Order: sequence, then C-alpha cells, then structure tokens
Amino acid sequence: MINQHYLSMLEHKSVIRELAEYAGRRGKEIGYENVFDFSLGNPSVPAPESFKNAAVNLLETMEPLALHGYTPSAGSPYVKEKVAASLKRRFGIAYKPEHIFPTSGCAAALAHALRAVTEPGEDVLVFAPFFPEYVPYICDTGANIRIVPPDLPDFQINFEALEEMLAPETGAVLINTPNNPSGAVYTEETLQRLGDVLREYSKRFGHTIFLISDEPYREICFDGKKCPYPAAYYDNTLTCYSFSKSLSIPGERIGYVAVNPACEQSDKMDLIFAQISRGIGHNCPASLIQLAIARTLDDTADLSVYETNMNLLYDTFRDLGFSVPRPGGTFYIMPKAPEVSAEAFCRKALKYDLVFVPCEGFHAPGYFRVAYCIDTEKVERSLPVIRKFVREEYGTPGSRS
Amino acid sequence: MINQHYLSMLEHKSVIRELAEYAGRRGKEIGYENVFDFSLGNPSVPAPESFKNAAVNLLETMEPLALHGYTPSAGSPYVKEKVAASLKRRFGIAYKPEHIFPTSGCAAALAHALRAVTEPGEDVLVFAPFFPEYVPYICDTGANIRIVPPDLPDFQINFEALEEMLAPETGAVLINTPNNPSGAVYTEETLQRLGDVLREYSKRFGHTIFLISDEPYREICFDGKKCPYPAAYYDNTLTCYSFSKSLSIPGERIGYVAVNPACEQSDKMDLIFAQISRGIGHNCPASLIQLAIARTLDDTADLSVYETNMNLLYDTFRDLGFSVPRPGGTFYIMPKAPEVSAEAFCRKALKYDLVFVPCEGFHAPGYFRVAYCIDTEKVERSLPVIRKFVREEYGTPGSRS
Repeated sequence: MINQHYLSMLEHKSVIRELAEYAGRRGKEIGYENVFDFSLGNPSVPAPESFKNAAVNLLETMEPLALHGYTPSAGSPYVKEKVAASLKRRFGIAYKPEHIFPTSGCAAALAHALRAVTEPGEDVLVFAPFFPEYVPYICDTGANIRIVPPDLPDFQINFEALEEMLAPETGAVLINTPNNPSGAVYTEETLQRLGDVLREYSKRFGHTIFLISDEPYREICFDGKKCPYPAAYYDNTLTCYSFSKSLSIPGERIGYVAVNPACEQSDKMDLIFAQISRGIGHNCPASLIQLAIARTLDDTADLSVYETNMNLLYDTFRDLGFSVPRPGGTFYIMPKAPEVSAEAFCRKALKYDLVFVPCEGFHAPGYFRVAYCIDTEKVERSLPVIRKFVREEYGTPGSRS
Repeated sequence: MINQHYLSMLEHKSVIRELAEYAGRRGKEIGYENVFDFSLGNPSVPAPESFKNAAVNLLETMEPLALHGYTPSAGSPYVKEKVAASLKRRFGIAYKPEHIFPTSGCAAALAHALRAVTEPGEDVLVFAPFFPEYVPYICDTGANIRIVPPDLPDFQINFEALEEMLAPETGAVLINTPNNPSGAVYTEETLQRLGDVLREYSKRFGHTIFLISDEPYREICFDGKKCPYPAAYYDNTLTCYSFSKSLSIPGERIGYVAVNPACEQSDKMDLIFAQISRGIGHNCPASLIQLAIARTLDDTADLSVYETNMNLLYDTFRDLGFSVPRPGGTFYIMPKAPEVSAEAFCRKALKYDLVFVPCEGFHAPGYFRVAYCIDTEKVERSLPVIRKFVREEYGTPGSRS
C-alpha cells in the first residue's frame, strides 16, 4: 500500500519553500529584480571556467567506455586518491584513498556517515540552530535526534548543555561549521574543547562517540581567515563535504565523506559505506562529475561577493539596532527580530518585498535568516528598503523596546 | 557505535565480484585478452556520439548558474516533460511530467518505488531467478522479500506458485523483463495474465498490490521485436528505468521512475518520492546528466553486438547439448550446468580461463550466467575453448548423462 508516513509528510510544507514560491509569484507581478528575495541558499556566482574545461576535456578526450563506465561502489580510485592528497596537503591529516568516499553531495555524505556510526535507537546530538533537513537525515536511519540548546549570543557550543545531554545512548554528535543559518564559525578553542569532551565521555561510557562534521560552507570564510578543520581536533571524525558552494555546482550533487585515518575502523569505512549504498540506492555520484572535480579540487568560484554582501547587511542591521552575530563564513546572517515572533516580523517584511526566513524551523526562535547569495547590486538596493521597513514598522532604534 | 549490521555485511563476499577480481588478476598474468571474462554486466559498446555532443553543448552554451544549479527535488521540470512525452509516444500511455521522477540509476529508482508503495513489514514478491541486489534493495526498506519459484524451462511466470504466495500482506510484486540473469522477456500473454491476477487479488484483499517493473534492459531486445511494456497491462505500475545499458553510461547514474497515470496517487507520487529522498540522501541525479539525457532520450548505443554474441553462444551451448533457454533480450544467457553444482562447473571452467557465474545467488541453482557484453571477436575466440572444456570435462553430448 501507499506508505502513509511519506504521504503524511506532504502536508508539512517547508516555510523556506513557501517563501521562495511567494517570491517567485511576486516576481511575476512586479519583476523579479524588484523582489528582495533573501530566502534560498543557492550559490549566486558562476562555477569557475576550470570546471567547465575539465568536463569538456574529459568528454572530448577520454574513451567513452572508461569515462561513462561503472565506478567501483566505493568510488573511483583516482578520485579517492586526488581528494585524499588535497586534504592531506591542506589540513595535514594523512588521508589515504580508502578514507575517501565520493557521494552525491552532502545529503548523501550524511546519509552514509550517520548510518555507519550509529545503531537504530541511538541518539545523535545536534546544536541549535541547525539545518532543518537534519531531522529526516537522522530520523530516517532509526536514530533519535536530540537538540542541544544554542550558545547565545555567539552560537559557538553550549558546553554545559552538551555535557548534560551526552548519555550512554549517544552514538554521534553532528556539527555544522561554518553554520547555516547563523554564519558562525567554530573557533579552535571551541573545537579543542569539543574534542576534549567527546574523548572524556567516550571513555566514561566505554564506547566511541563519533563526530560527524557537515562542512559545505568550509571555503566561504571571511576576514582572510581559514575555517578551523574539526577533524584535526578529534580522531573519530567523519567529515562530510560538498562542492555545491565552493564550485557553485549544487545541481551536480558531488561531495564526499573523509574518514580521519585515526578513526575507529577507518580502513574499512569506505567498504561499510558501500554496503549502506546498496540499501539506499546510492551507487556513487556521476562518473563524469567525479572525474571533473578531481581536476578542480583546489579551485573555487569567486566567493568574495558573499563577504561584500555580508558586510553591507551586517552594518545595516547593526545601525538599525538589531542584535546580530557577525558571520565568520557562509552566505547567511541571522539577526534577532525586533519582536518576539520572527514569523510576524518576516510577514511584515513581505509588504516591502523583503523575503526573509523566520528561524523557528532552525530551532532559533525569534531570529530570522537572510541568505545573501544574490548580486551585490541587489543587496545595495535592498538596504534603503530594509531601513524604511524597520523605521516604519518598529520606529527608530532609540524608540524601540 | 559502528553499525554492526553493515560491518557484518563485509564478510559476505559477492561471487560475481570475486570472479571478476580473479579475472583481473589472471589477466595480469596472461594478458586480459586471453581471459574469457563473462562475469560482469558492464556495457561493452561506447555511448553514442549524441550523448557527448549534448553534454559538451550544454557546457559550452548554457549559463553555468542555470546548468549547475539546484534542480527541484522532484527533478528538472524540463526533463520530466521530455521523458513523459517520449514514453507517451512510444508506449501510448498518457504520462505527464508529474508522473516522472528522475533518479540516480535503477538502484535509486527501486529505492524510491519500493518505499513509496510498501509499508515496513509488508511482503514484496520477486520471481526466481533475480538480480541478487534485490535482497538489500527490498530488505533495507523494512519490507520482506518473498521468492516465487521459477517457471521452468522458459522463465516466464509460475502463476500457480504466485497465486499461492499472494497474501493480504503483499504490498508489491517486483518483476524484471528482459531478465537478468536468464535473458527471458515476458510475453504479452504473461503480462496480461499477471495483470489479471493482480487485479483479482487486489480486489480480494481490499487493497492495491503494486507492480514495480525493473527495466534497465528494455531496449536490448532480439529478433527485431520490441519488449512488451508491463505498465500497459496493469494500471498500478511503477516503471523503473536506467539509461545505463541503452546509452552505455552506467557510471553516470541516470534513470527514472515512471508512474502509470492510472496508478493510485499517481499525481502525488513524485512528491512522495521527493520526501523519500530526504531520508536516504538522494536529492536528484546530476543536473548536467539529467539535461544531457533529455536531449538523447530516443537514442541508443549500437546494441546489435549483443544479439550477435547471443546467437554465437546460444548455438554453441545448444550444439554441446546444454539445456539453455534462448534469450529474448539483455546481454545474458543462462544455460543449465551439466552437473548438479553450477559452482563446481564454473570452477572447472576457470582452468580454461572461462569465467562464468554460478546462479545460486540468483536463485537459479544448477544454472550459470554468461554475460556477453564483450567484443564479438573475443566471443568468437572463446567458442573453441568452451567446446574443448566441455568435451574434456564432460565428454561428447551423446556420452553425457
């Protein structure tokens, strides 16, 4: 019979998607250039020329049978080797090919990592605020999601709450740095302390608590800094990566899991992942795309626009008196709404054709997300509209509560 | 903790993979051209030029943001429309875009179809012989696999056994025509009778029994015939297709589920599939590959070599006195071994550098699979070796038991 669980999921509409659809409809009325659509996290800069060149060159020069043939279920050995070498060079961890498992983007990376290091019934801890899709990602494996409350106001880790929630049932801890939706980047100090806590509690409970690190925004880091690499602070780390944002190719669905060589069962983990693929129908990302990214591993799209946009919006929201943590990376900023309900705030913003996303679904009630992966020119045009909206609806900063 | 179920799966080695690895090692000793490797079902003819041209043209002319951007989770509307129109034209069923769900090959198509139309605990009936991966495909959804014994000697459907096994717990029936490993193609009569039986038992049990039709070999059909299209004989059919064989692009992982417009919930099924994707980490096939196949839907690689090879092998095995059903399609033939254990037969064949696969894993004990997706020149060279092997080990046809 039709599966009632999946059928019932259709009734739960995504707020982000509804807002994006609204923006699309409104755009048809007044011209999309006049809708300040900050709803969706889609890269706005083109893929680098090198990616196109790599793909065209592969198509033009490689034997079709080799180019389009089955790759082994644990991934193309050539791609695994290239990714391992790049990570080793960049982060100083001695990855070998068997530690790399190419996946169809971060969603598939997480689908494999979560299944590999948890048993059904175990807990996976996540930190508010977090990407709402973590709920189906985790719950579909049979594990339980448990939410560690946020660390205010900087959205690092609330260690007191974490230590209270770690339990013998804890199978894994899932982090996301740089963070969607807050833009926060975990500091070295945060990651060091997280590693210490996980080591301590793994020992106390007599089993490994794995760290799953979701890093699609790793390369979008501001102020000339590099994002600290979580796997460097804790051996039992599975790093989930996607090239969606760094190369601006989200539709190509390409990423990987990298297993720290010092992780438990690290030498077998790609084979365990391949077993998982059999049940969930994964069977590797497209071979052409695997081979193309192997040639462009250290390239990125021109990501500087995101920092430019962040600064414009951060300054504007601060000038307007908002409480707003300064993003260290991503293409999101998450100010606190000037009233209790961020949903009410976002509804009012729509009257000004400003499309923001309330963060209830991200487990950051009272905050809203502004996705600034749009042209800087449009961000600039939005600023006076944002000022007008806030002054008309909430008064000048001094006069607000 | 490390998931013990997936870890334990590592101990169950695949016979096909072991044989293929053996062939690879042996090839390094004596030259791969001297190993008659009939073990793997990998297409041996190159993708058509049109596929390369489509991909290169997309890369050269389309805006990178549009080409590589996120596709909706139910698939690119353009691709859905093109596939629907092609199927409508070819099979006379009024598919619309919402009935098509692009997937990462047939494995992903089956992963979605099985989850959509069964509840955990329900039965899925399969027909021996069948592709061994059906076991993880079905069991990972929480459903139970139940095996209908084969219809000898032609490998159509054993209806007596089917009717005995249909039960109120039956959620779906999974067929594969043309069939791996037997090469059998279900006749119109078989499909008509199957439709009648499923209609009757759906009515008797008061709920729909869905038909899931796995058709990666649909375009490889012999004797100038077209393979009868199962969805035309039963409304509640989900057709799972892959371009791996027809376009010789298995590594690109591209296929679809097509839901018969007359199927229960057909208008919502692509949205149900998209909900399933969230939990299993699917999120669409690569956008470049989706768009490239939309331009080459009605093309195929030059598939005629498979029929040439089939005829050579069929005639040889028949001349040697084997009981062997003549394949109507695929690139497999499945003779009966001249001794009880097909495994023993295949082990003896290895001494002659003939690599066949015993069909115990396909639930056809006593038979062996010969995958003839290799060059005709090599098939021709293998024939005297097959004759020599059989005569030396089993005597002339007349003298065999």
